[in-house]
Amino acid sequence: MVFDTEKFIPGQSVDCVIVGFDKEGLKILILRWKLVGLWGLPGGFVLKSEDLDKAATRVLNERVGISLPFLQQFHTFGKKDRRANETRFSHLSKMQVPQTFLDWFGQRFISTGYVSLVNLNDCDPKPDHLSDLIHWCPLHELPDLIYDHSSIVEGAIDFIRNQINYLPIGRRLLPEKFTMKELQQLYESILEKKLDRGNFQRKMLKLGIFIRHEKHLEGGAHKAPYLYSFDGDKYDALLKKGIGFAS
Amino acid sequence: MVFDTEKFIPGQSVDCVIVGFDKEGLKILILRWKLVGLWGLPGGFVLKSEDLDKAATRVLNERVGISLPFLQQFHTFGKKDRRANETRFSHLSKMQVPQTFLDWFGQRFISTGYVSLVNLNDCDPKPDHLSDLIHWCPLHELPDLIYDHSSIVEGAIDFIRNQINYLPIGRRLLPEKFTMKELQQLYESILEKKLDRGNFQRKMLKLGIFIRHEKHLEGGAHKAPYLYSFDGDKYDALLKKGIGFAS
Repeated sequence: MVFDTEKFIPGQSVDCVIVGFDKEGLKILILRWKLVGLWGLPGGFVLKSEDLDKAATRVLNERVGISLPFLQQFHTFGKKDRRANETRFSHLSKMQVPQTFLDWFGQRFISTGYVSLVNLNDCDPKPDHLSDLIHWCPLHELPDLIYDHSSIVEGAIDFIRNQINYLPIGRRLLPEKFTMKELQQLYESILEKKLDRGNFQRKMLKLGIFIRHEKHLEGGAHKAPYLYSFDGDKYDALLKKGIGFAS
Repeated sequence: MVFDTEKFIPGQSVDCVIVGFDKEGLKILILRWKLVGLWGLPGGFVLKSEDLDKAATRVLNERVGISLPFLQQFHTFGKKDRRANETRFSHLSKMQVPQTFLDWFGQRFISTGYVSLVNLNDCDPKPDHLSDLIHWCPLHELPDLIYDHSSIVEGAIDFIRNQINYLPIGRRLLPEKFTMKELQQLYESILEKKLDRGNFQRKMLKLGIFIRHEKHLEGGAHKAPYLYSFDGDKYDALLKKGIGFAS
């Protein structure tokens, strides 16, 4: 646990909420700190020589060994006591951690949160040298996290929930060809509620971003649903334009 | 221009984008710096003893003399050269400004942006002692602003445009009783495009947050539009619930 604190901006950190999607729902990537055995998000500090957004990408890569080019900033957490209320690190002594680090970690930090929603099966995260365990934890089974990391997770989920009202979602999360039911399950995982099937399909198809393929043959042929894929160009155009009100 | 830099967190600032709405459209509140004659957003620094959100409210009040309880954080601007590229302050000498301030202003700052959309006629901002002019500037007539303040304005407008897709808007912006046409004009000002009248009214009324009153009698009675007001409880409930996808 050696790094040159002089290279970093004092008081500024980034925290990454990596939300993994699979058939079981949403899961959050968390790390367990060595020495204290406490769980937290992959986070870190901002180099004096780098942009804030760049810091998030670098920190994520250093902490869990994955590269995500689609990290989105969603909120900055700046309550003055957001770390001061955390007492579970306080028993660490100079024996275990050098004083410069105790001082560094003891200061007030304002932390900017970044989020990415990923297909859990496309990621293979590994714990770094600060951590002894890494875990994709189901959203509603999260342990007590360090500092205000539970609020940071909550903020990230709110951000994604709001965003699906004005941007398309699903590419990189679903297989290349998927059924409307699979797409609906993705939305239901994020919104945590059941959606009306007919209503959902009608709204979705109206977006005009799908290519319809052959039927997905399983069970009785008359019940077989169509397979769809995203039309890349139209999807990109809608990402730029947004699913506007009154559009 | 005297303040105790010791009281503030180094490298951390807030900038406020106050978007005023009136019949002419959207206007941005900007201040002109004394000594240099450059325009910028009302911004300032974060006390070591205060929450980041609190800093935004305080700074806005100190810089332009208005109190807005509804400031919303929308993005943190952290490019490493976001202030370094600004050379128009560099001719300031120690004669004009003490060295401690030149040093303070010369450091890298990461700035968190806050936005509020207000009824321009409800606000009476005044320039502070750092500024010699204050101006509600139409969005598309903004002068060249200091630092990355133009990007900060752009980010704020994007944020509001996205937000009206999932939250109701209009209370505090429109008179207590208003016509659907006035509400539509508000949306059109924000989206900067004409909306279809029938489609707009249908979507709006479906939200179920309006109370219908008498007709607004002007011109021929057969053409008179209804007046509406917001149903406060239902408006609040929708603010919490959101105008969800597939809702």
